[in-house]
Amino acid sequence: MIRSVTVPAAGVPFKNNAAYCVGTGRMGLALQQEYLDHLDLVQEAIRFRYIRGHGLFCDDMSIYRELDSPEGPRPYYNFTYLDRVVDSYLARGIRPFLELGFMPEKLKSGEQTIFYWKGNVTPPNDFDKWEILVEHTLAHLAERYGHDEVATWPVEVWNEPNIGFWAGTMQEYFHLYEVSARAVKRVDPRIPVGGPAICGVDTEHWLRSFFSFVTENDLPIDMVTRHCYAANQPRREGFYVHHSLRKNDIMIDELRETRQIMDDYPRIAGLPLHITEFSTSYVPRCPVHDTVYNAAYIARILSEAGDYADSYSYWTFSDVFEEADVPISVLHGGFGLVGLESIKKPTFWTFAFFSRAGGELVYRDENLIVTRDGDRYAIIGWHADATTDQSAEPISYNLRLPGLSSPQCLLLKQSVGGKHANPLQTWSNLGKPYTLDDAQRRILRASAEPLQRDEKLFAREDGWLEVSVSLPSNHLCMLEITPVEDRTVTYAGFDAREHYGLE
Amino acid sequence: MIRSVTVPAAGVPFKNNAAYCVGTGRMGLALQQEYLDHLDLVQEAIRFRYIRGHGLFCDDMSIYRELDSPEGPRPYYNFTYLDRVVDSYLARGIRPFLELGFMPEKLKSGEQTIFYWKGNVTPPNDFDKWEILVEHTLAHLAERYGHDEVATWPVEVWNEPNIGFWAGTMQEYFHLYEVSARAVKRVDPRIPVGGPAICGVDTEHWLRSFFSFVTENDLPIDMVTRHCYAANQPRREGFYVHHSLRKNDIMIDELRETRQIMDDYPRIAGLPLHITEFSTSYVPRCPVHDTVYNAAYIARILSEAGDYADSYSYWTFSDVFEEADVPISVLHGGFGLVGLESIKKPTFWTFAFFSRAGGELVYRDENLIVTRDGDRYAIIGWHADATTDQSAEPISYNLRLPGLSSPQCLLLKQSVGGKHANPLQTWSNLGKPYTLDDAQRRILRASAEPLQRDEKLFAREDGWLEVSVSLPSNHLCMLEITPVEDRTVTYAGFDAREHYGLE
Amino acid sequence: MIRSVTVPAAGVPFKNNAAYCVGTGRMGLALQQEYLDHLDLVQEAIRFRYIRGHGLFCDDMSIYRELDSPEGPRPYYNFTYLDRVVDSYLARGIRPFLELGFMPEKLKSGEQTIFYWKGNVTPPNDFDKWEILVEHTLAHLAERYGHDEVATWPVEVWNEPNIGFWAGTMQEYFHLYEVSARAVKRVDPRIPVGGPAICGVDTEHWLRSFFSFVTENDLPIDMVTRHCYAANQPRREGFYVHHSLRKNDIMIDELRETRQIMDDYPRIAGLPLHITEFSTSYVPRCPVHDTVYNAAYIARILSEAGDYADSYSYWTFSDVFEEADVPISVLHGGFGLVGLESIKKPTFWTFAFFSRAGGELVYRDENLIVTRDGDRYAIIGWHADATTDQSAEPISYNLRLPGLSSPQCLLLKQSVGGKHANPLQTWSNLGKPYTLDDAQRRILRASAEPLQRDEKLFAREDGWLEVSVSLPSNHLCMLEITPVEDRTVTYAGFDAREHYGLE
Amino acid sequence: MIRSVTVPAAGVPFKNNAAYCVGTGRMGLALQQEYLDHLDLVQEAIRFRYIRGHGLFCDDMSIYRELDSPEGPRPYYNFTYLDRVVDSYLARGIRPFLELGFMPEKLKSGEQTIFYWKGNVTPPNDFDKWEILVEHTLAHLAERYGHDEVATWPVEVWNEPNIGFWAGTMQEYFHLYEVSARAVKRVDPRIPVGGPAICGVDTEHWLRSFFSFVTENDLPIDMVTRHCYAANQPRREGFYVHHSLRKNDIMIDELRETRQIMDDYPRIAGLPLHITEFSTSYVPRCPVHDTVYNAAYIARILSEAGDYADSYSYWTFSDVFEEADVPISVLHGGFGLVGLESIKKPTFWTFAFFSRAGGELVYRDENLIVTRDGDRYAIIGWHADATTDQSAEPISYNLRLPGLSSPQCLLLKQSVGGKHANPLQTWSNLGKPYTLDDAQRRILRASAEPLQRDEKLFAREDGWLEVSVSLPSNHLCMLEITPVEDRTVTYAGFDAREHYGLE
Repeated sequence: MIRSVTVPAAGVPFKNNAAYCVGTGRMGLALQQEYLDHLDLVQEAIRFRYIRGHGLFCDDMSIYRELDSPEGPRPYYNFTYLDRVVDSYLARGIRPFLELGFMPEKLKSGEQTIFYWKGNVTPPNDFDKWEILVEHTLAHLAERYGHDEVATWPVEVWNEPNIGFWAGTMQEYFHLYEVSARAVKRVDPRIPVGGPAICGVDTEHWLRSFFSFVTENDLPIDMVTRHCYAANQPRREGFYVHHSLRKNDIMIDELRETRQIMDDYPRIAGLPLHITEFSTSYVPRCPVHDTVYNAAYIARILSEAGDYADSYSYWTFSDVFEEADVPISVLHGGFGLVGLESIKKPTFWTFAFFSRAGGELVYRDENLIVTRDGDRYAIIGWHADATTDQSAEPISYNLRLPGLSSPQCLLLKQSVGGKHANPLQTWSNLGKPYTLDDAQRRILRASAEPLQRDEKLFAREDGWLEVSVSLPSNHLCMLEITPVEDRTVTYAGFDAREHYGLE
Repeated sequence: MIRSVTVPAAGVPFKNNAAYCVGTGRMGLALQQEYLDHLDLVQEAIRFRYIRGHGLFCDDMSIYRELDSPEGPRPYYNFTYLDRVVDSYLARGIRPFLELGFMPEKLKSGEQTIFYWKGNVTPPNDFDKWEILVEHTLAHLAERYGHDEVATWPVEVWNEPNIGFWAGTMQEYFHLYEVSARAVKRVDPRIPVGGPAICGVDTEHWLRSFFSFVTENDLPIDMVTRHCYAANQPRREGFYVHHSLRKNDIMIDELRETRQIMDDYPRIAGLPLHITEFSTSYVPRCPVHDTVYNAAYIARILSEAGDYADSYSYWTFSDVFEEADVPISVLHGGFGLVGLESIKKPTFWTFAFFSRAGGELVYRDENLIVTRDGDRYAIIGWHADATTDQSAEPISYNLRLPGLSSPQCLLLKQSVGGKHANPLQTWSNLGKPYTLDDAQRRILRASAEPLQRDEKLFAREDGWLEVSVSLPSNHLCMLEITPVEDRTVTYAGFDAREHYGLE
Repeated sequence: MIRSVTVPAAGVPFKNNAAYCVGTGRMGLALQQEYLDHLDLVQEAIRFRYIRGHGLFCDDMSIYRELDSPEGPRPYYNFTYLDRVVDSYLARGIRPFLELGFMPEKLKSGEQTIFYWKGNVTPPNDFDKWEILVEHTLAHLAERYGHDEVATWPVEVWNEPNIGFWAGTMQEYFHLYEVSARAVKRVDPRIPVGGPAICGVDTEHWLRSFFSFVTENDLPIDMVTRHCYAANQPRREGFYVHHSLRKNDIMIDELRETRQIMDDYPRIAGLPLHITEFSTSYVPRCPVHDTVYNAAYIARILSEAGDYADSYSYWTFSDVFEEADVPISVLHGGFGLVGLESIKKPTFWTFAFFSRAGGELVYRDENLIVTRDGDRYAIIGWHADATTDQSAEPISYNLRLPGLSSPQCLLLKQSVGGKHANPLQTWSNLGKPYTLDDAQRRILRASAEPLQRDEKLFAREDGWLEVSVSLPSNHLCMLEITPVEDRTVTYAGFDAREHYGLE
Repeated sequence: MIRSVTVPAAGVPFKNNAAYCVGTGRMGLALQQEYLDHLDLVQEAIRFRYIRGHGLFCDDMSIYRELDSPEGPRPYYNFTYLDRVVDSYLARGIRPFLELGFMPEKLKSGEQTIFYWKGNVTPPNDFDKWEILVEHTLAHLAERYGHDEVATWPVEVWNEPNIGFWAGTMQEYFHLYEVSARAVKRVDPRIPVGGPAICGVDTEHWLRSFFSFVTENDLPIDMVTRHCYAANQPRREGFYVHHSLRKNDIMIDELRETRQIMDDYPRIAGLPLHITEFSTSYVPRCPVHDTVYNAAYIARILSEAGDYADSYSYWTFSDVFEEADVPISVLHGGFGLVGLESIKKPTFWTFAFFSRAGGELVYRDENLIVTRDGDRYAIIGWHADATTDQSAEPISYNLRLPGLSSPQCLLLKQSVGGKHANPLQTWSNLGKPYTLDDAQRRILRASAEPLQRDEKLFAREDGWLEVSVSLPSNHLCMLEITPVEDRTVTYAGFDAREHYGLE
C-alpha cells in the first residue's frame, strides 16, 4: 500500500528535544577512555546538550570521606574525579544534568544496594550531613566553573525512589528532596531543582503525593522528572533478559497523562517535564537494544514526545556500562547508542537523524515526519515491526512537496536496516566474536554506517517536488532535500559523454 | 551470460607489484599539507613502497645555487626542502624512487620549458657541474639517512627524453646518463641506477640504442624504465582534454614487447623493468581519470602486468598537481587516486583491492582474478565498458572454490560503481561546486566509500564454496572469504527470535 | 644602577595592539604544512586576529586566468587555492587582512618583477579587468564566507608603491587605488579599504599627495596604512645582509609624525592607522632577526606604538618565506617569529608576553612596563644592547606595587636571553647544522623555551608588594603576579619537614 | 670538596635494567584515559618494556564469573576488559608482566581483603577452578595475541604472600604456585613462570623454603621475584604517612644477599632475579615520592642494581592509583613517576636519564656514573640529602674524559632540583590547589621540565675533555657529550659580531 501525501507549504514548530539530554552509565565510568571515545562519537553526530546518570555520590567517585580525628570523624570532600569528569564533559560541549545519589558508604543507614556495582540505596544516616554534602558539592562546582555556568545545570533529587532504588519510604524521599533542594538553592537560587525521578510504577500516586508535598511546604521546584520504558514482562535466559515491547505510542500516552496530572497543581502546571530516562527495555542485556527494530521504535517516540516533554533522555549513549556486570561481548543487548569498540548501533542514527530535523513540522504520521528549515527538507521515516521474520510489507509513500528556491535539488538518502547500519547482523556473520581483532573492527565499524545514496531531484513544471519513500520492515531512513545551483555550464568544454555513465 | 568457473586448489605465485611504486606531482608540492593528507590516505589503505615524480632539481626545490664571489660564481647546495620532503616520505613509510631532473636555472643551456610550472628541459650548460650536483645530492642523502637506506632508493636518469621533456639529442641524453650513473655509483655502488625513462614514442629505436650504448660503454645499469599510457589522440575542449582509451590489454602487450627487446641484450636481459609512469590518459584534465571506467580499466592491467614488469607506478596518487595549471575544481580530470579535498576516486579502490590480494593466483581471466592467502580468498572483478551509456550487460560468474578451514565463512563484498564510490556522480548531483563547503565535503567523502556488504557463506556438503559475482557495466568489486568460528552456542540464552530479523 | 619605582594604584588604558595583525610570506606558502604548523604555534601562544602578506593575485595562487575562445581570451577565476588558504586561516582563528597584489601574468603591462619568486609589479594592462578581478574575488569570498564575515576583512591596495614594488607612477597608483576601492565597495560598503601602503621613503610627499587625491576625488577610505623598518644601511656579505639598527624609539617618532600629517586632512584625521609591516631589518637574511637583541628591541616598540597606531603587523610570523630564495638553513636571519623546524625565536616571546599584558598601564619607561588586569600584574622588561659583546651593565628595578586581593601571591618569571630561549646560540653550539635530525630538533626546540621560575611573594605588612627585576644585556622578561589562596592548612597532617627542601 | 676523576678509555658493560619493567596500579585502572595519558608520557621518554601490577583477577576486571544452570553454577570467563587493557599496552610498546591475583569473588574462601578497592586475598575455595582459570586466561591470550608473543610475557604467582596479601599459610602459597605454574606451562612451556613475589619480611626463610619446595617437587621455575622498599617505620598523620628512608645502598645489599641465597640451590642459581616492586616508601601517601630527594635516591639504585637483578620495577609509573583511596589532590605523595594532570615528578627524570645511558660503564661512584655509547658520553649525577634543610654542601667533580671523534663537542646539561623540575615546590607556590585550572596546569607542567643548558665543549690540546659537575643538595643531573661538526665556515659571510652576543 502506498500512502500519497501532499505536504503543505507551512507547518507548525517542531518541538524536537531529541538532543536535549542523554543518559550515561555511572559517573565513575566517565574516567574511561572508551567512554570518552563514545562520547566523542555521539557529540560529533548528535551534539547532546546535557548528560545524566547515576553515581555522583557513589564511593568510586570518592567525594564524601571522613578523617579520624581526636574529636571524632571529620568529613572532607574529594573532588579529584568529579572535576576530571566535568572537565571532560565540558570539553565535549555537554553539560551535566546532575542526579543526587546514591549514598556514600559513610552516610548509609543500611546495607541495601543495587546493581553489580553495589550502589547503596539507603537514606542518609544523618540528613544534615547529606545536606552539607549537597551544598558543598554544588558550591565547589560553582567556584570552579562559575556561578553563571552552574546555574544552567539542572539538579534531580535521587533516582526512582518508587522502586528498589530507595530503601526508605515515600515520606523519607520527600524529606530528602526538601533538604537537597534547600542546599542547592543556597548555592545559587538559579540552579533548577526537581524530582521525583520515578519510573512507571505507582506513578499517579507518587506524582500527586509529591506535588502536594512540594506545594504544601512551599519547596523549590523548577521541573518535574520521571522515567518511561516500553517493555513488557521480561524472560530471563542465560546471559540475556528478553523483552517484548508495548505498542510504540504507549510512551506518548504516558507523557500526556503526566502532563494532565501536573495541570491539577497550579505550582506545577507548566513546569518543564523532563523524562530523565527512557528506552525500550530497561535491562542492559536485552538484545532488542541492538536491533534496527529498536531504532525504528524510538523514532516514533522522538517524532512526537516533544509535544509533551521538554526532554527525553535516552538511556544510554554508550555500552560502557556495568549495572548488570561488565559486558561479555562487543554486542550484548546493552543500552547504548554506541556499542563496545565504538560500534554505532542502529538507534545512534535515530538520534543523528532527528538532531538534523528542521524546525518546522509540515507533515507527521505514525511512520514519517517531514520537516523543513527554510530552504531545506528533512524527512525521517521508520517502520518498526515487532514480528521477527520481517515478513511485513514495506510502507511506501509518494510525497508531493512545495518546491525550494531552485528547480534542481539534491536528494540525499540514508537508510538503516537489512544489510546496512546493522552491526548486529554483521557481528553475527563474523561468528559473534567476544572482542574484535583489527580486521573485524574495521569491517564492523564500516558496516555500521547507513547506506548513503544521492541523486538529482528536479521540480516538476508546476514547481512541486515528488519523492517516494519505501520503508521495509525494521528500517529507518532520512531524506534530505536541498536546492542546488548547477554550475555545469560554467565548465568550458564539459561533455557528459566523456564521463562513461555520468547521469 | 554467466561464466561458471571451478577454481583449482593450487595456483601459481601472483606477481603483484601494484603497491611497489606510485607517481606524484613535482617534488615541491610535497611541502603542501593537502598533498600530505592525501599521502596519508593512500598509505593507510594501500601502503606503497616507493614514490616517484619530477622536479628534484627544479628551482622551487632550490637545491642548486651559485653565490657570487671574486673568483666567479661558486655553486652551493640547499637541501632545506629536499630534507623536509624526504623526512615526510619516510615518516609515512614510503621511499623516494629518485628521478634526476629537470635543469636548474643556473645550469640550463636554453629556455625550453615544460608545464605550467616551467620545468627547464635543456641539457646542462656544464656536464661536470651536473655530475657534481648529482653526486653531492646523493652524498648528502646518504649522510643524512644512512648509506644502507639510500642504497635501496633507485635512481632514474631524467624523464621521457624521447619527447618534449628533453631539448637535447638522443646522444646528449646518453651522455647525461653516463655522467649521472657514474656520479651515483661514486656515492654508493649499491644504489640502483637506470633509464631511459621513455614514453611510448619511437620506443624500440630508443630502447635498442640505449641498450647498445650502455653495453658498449660498459656503463652501470641496474634497471630499465619506461612509461605506458593507454590513450588515443586527444580532443581539446575548453578546460578539458578528452581521450578515448585503447583496448585494455594494450599495455600488457607493450610490456611483453619491451621484455622481448631487453632479452636481445645479455647485459640487459633479466634486469628489473620498472614502468615508472602509467595511466589511461596522459593529461591531467581528462575526465576519464575520475570515472569508475578508469578504475575497472586499470584493474585489468594490475591483474597481469606483474608477469612482465617489476613495478608499474600509477601516475599519480593525488590531484595535488600543477602540470596543467592549478586545478580549477574539486574534480577536474586530474591524474590522482585522491581528488582535492581528500575525495577518494574510484581507482583508489583498484589499488586498495589489489594491495590486499593473496600471494597465490588460482584463477585469472580478463575480468576476474581469484587469489588466495592460505586460508583466505581475495577475489577482484572488474567490468570496464568504454561505451558511455552503460548499456552493456553485466558480466556474471558462478565460482566454485575449494573450502577453507571452517565450513562457515564470512563473505565480505565491496563494490565500486553506480551510486557508490562514484564521487564524480555525487559531485555532479551537488551541482559541480568548484570548492566544497563543510556539508558538501561530508557528503562527498562518505559517497566515495565502496558499498560494503557481508554475509554468511556455508560450504556445501561436498566441502566446496559457491559464490556468484555480478559485474555491471563500469563496476569494480572485491570479495573476501575468510573462515569463521561461530561462537553462537557459547552465548547462554541466545535466541535468534529476540533479534527481530537477524539472519 | 637600580631604579626604584613606586607603582600607582590606578593607571591608564594600555593601548596594546600587539596581537592585532601579523605579517606572512606570500599567500601561496600558506598551502605548506610547515607554514601551518608555525601558524598553530603562534596562534596557540599569541592569538593574532589578522594576517597580512603579499601574493593574493600572483600566479602561484592561480586566481586570474584566461581561456582561449573564438571571441578572444575569456577571463575566468580559479579560487581553489584561495579558498583552501582562507579556510585554513579561519580554522586557526585568524582573518585575512587582504593586500591587493601583485599583477597576474595575463594583466601585466611589463616585465618588472620583485623577489626570488618574481612577483610582477607593473600596472595592469587593463584597469577595467583589474577592477573586475578585485570585485569578483571579494564577491566570491562574500558568497563563501558570508557578507558579515568578509565585512570585517580590511583591504589594502597594493604594497609599497613608493619603491620598487610598483613600476608605475604615483598617479598610476592613485588610479589603481580608485578602481580597487570602488570594486571593493560594490561588493559590500562595509569592507574597510585603505592605502597607500608605503614604506619609509619619501613618506611625507606620498602621504600628503594620497590624502589630497582621496579627498579631492571623494574616494572611499577607511584606514591609512604604511610600513616602518628600523634598519640602517645594509652591508651585503655572502649569504647575509647585515644591518645595524637605529635608536629604538625611532619608530615611535615616525608614527607620531604620520599622525600629525593625517591630522591636516579632515577626512583622514582620526582614521585608523595600520602599520601593515614593521620589523628591525627589512631583509630576510639579516641575523639580527634571530637574536634576543631583536626581541628586546621590538618590546620597546610594542610598549608604546599603540598610542599612535591601531595595528603594527610584525613582518613576519614564520621563516617559511621565500623572498630572498628558499632559506638555506634552520636559522638564517629570516623575518619569522618561528624559525624552520618550528623553532621559536626570541621575538616570539615578545609577542607572547605582550599578548598577555593587562588592560591597564600603571607604569612605563623605556625598559619596562607594568600592566594590570584587575587582580593580576603583568610586568614586561627588556634590555636591548646594540653592542655585540654584551658588556653593558644589567638594568635593575626595585618595584613597589599596591597589593592584590590576597597577601600571598605567585610570582611567575619567564626570561629570554643568555642560555635560555636563545636558539641561535644553541644552534651554534650544535655546529650550525643546515637541517636538523631528530635529536637536534628535540634539543633546539626545548632550548627555545624561556627560563621559567616561580616563587611565593608575600605582601609586606603595609600591604605593598616588592619585586626586583634584573635585566642583563639583551634580555627580555615577563613577571606575572597573581593572588594565591593557600590551602596548605586544609591538608591534614601536612608537614613541610617531610618534603626535603620544600620552601 | 671537589672530586677529580680521570675517566679511562675502556670500561665494562653497564648492566642497565632501568627500563625493563615498571609498576602500575591495579589493572582495572588501565581503562582510564588519564592512566593512558601517563603511560604515553613515560613511553615517549623512557620506553619501558614490561608493566606489572595487581588486580588481573579482581572483580572489576570481571574475568571469572559463574552462571546459574540446572546443573549448578557454570564458570565462564569474560575477557572484555582484559583484551582492552592488553591492546592498549601493546599499542604503547609495553608488554604485560602478569601477576596472578587476587581472588575472584566466586573463588574466595574468606572475606579478608586489602586496600581501599578491597582485593580479596584468601586462597581459592577450589584449587582446581583456580588452575582452570589460570589456564583459560593464558590460553585466551595466546589465541588472541599469538603463542610467540605470549611466550615472552613472564607470569608471577600472587603478590607478597609473606604478609597481609595472603590469608593462607606458606604451604598454601606453595600449593597455589604449583597449580598455577602447571597451568601456565600447559598453555605454552615457553612462558616464564616464577615467584615467590615476597616483600622484605622474613625474607630468607621464605626464599629458602620456596626454593626447597620447587626443587623437591621438580616444579617449573624460570625466575625468582621479590620486592624491596627502603623506608623506615611510618608515622601516620592526617592525610599522610611519613617515612624516612634507609641508607641508599641498602637495597643493593639486599639484592646481593638474595643472589647469595639463590646460589645455594643448583636449580635456582643463575635464574633471572626480578625485583617486581621497589621504591622508597611503600605507602602512596608519603610526600617523599614527590621530591627531588627521591629522584636522587633512586638514581643511586639504578646505577648499580643491574649488577644483581635482571629488573627492578619502580612502583609505579603513575599516580592514577587507588590503593589508599582516590588521590585527594594533584600531588599527594603518590607512588607515580607522573602525578595527576600529567605532571612529571622528579623521579620521572631519573628513569628518563638512565634510559639514555650508554652501554659501557667507564666510571661509577656513589654519586655519579659516566657511561659511553661509542662516540658519545652520558653522565648522570645525583645528590640525595636526607636532611630537609638542604644545607649540605654541593658535591663537585672535575672530570677528565678521553676525547671523542671531533675536537668540538656539544655539552648538553639537564638538571632537576631547586627551582626546576620541582613541581612539588611550584604546586606549593600555587597554593597547593586540589585540582588545577588551565593556567595552573600550564605553569605546573612547564615547571616540571628539567633546566636544560647547552654549550660548546672543546677538547684540550692533548685531546682530553674536561667537564665539571656540581651537584647541590637534592639534585639530579644528566650531561651528554656528543661530537659536533662545526659548519660555521660553510656559511659565506657569517660574522659573529652581527649576532649581538653569540658565543
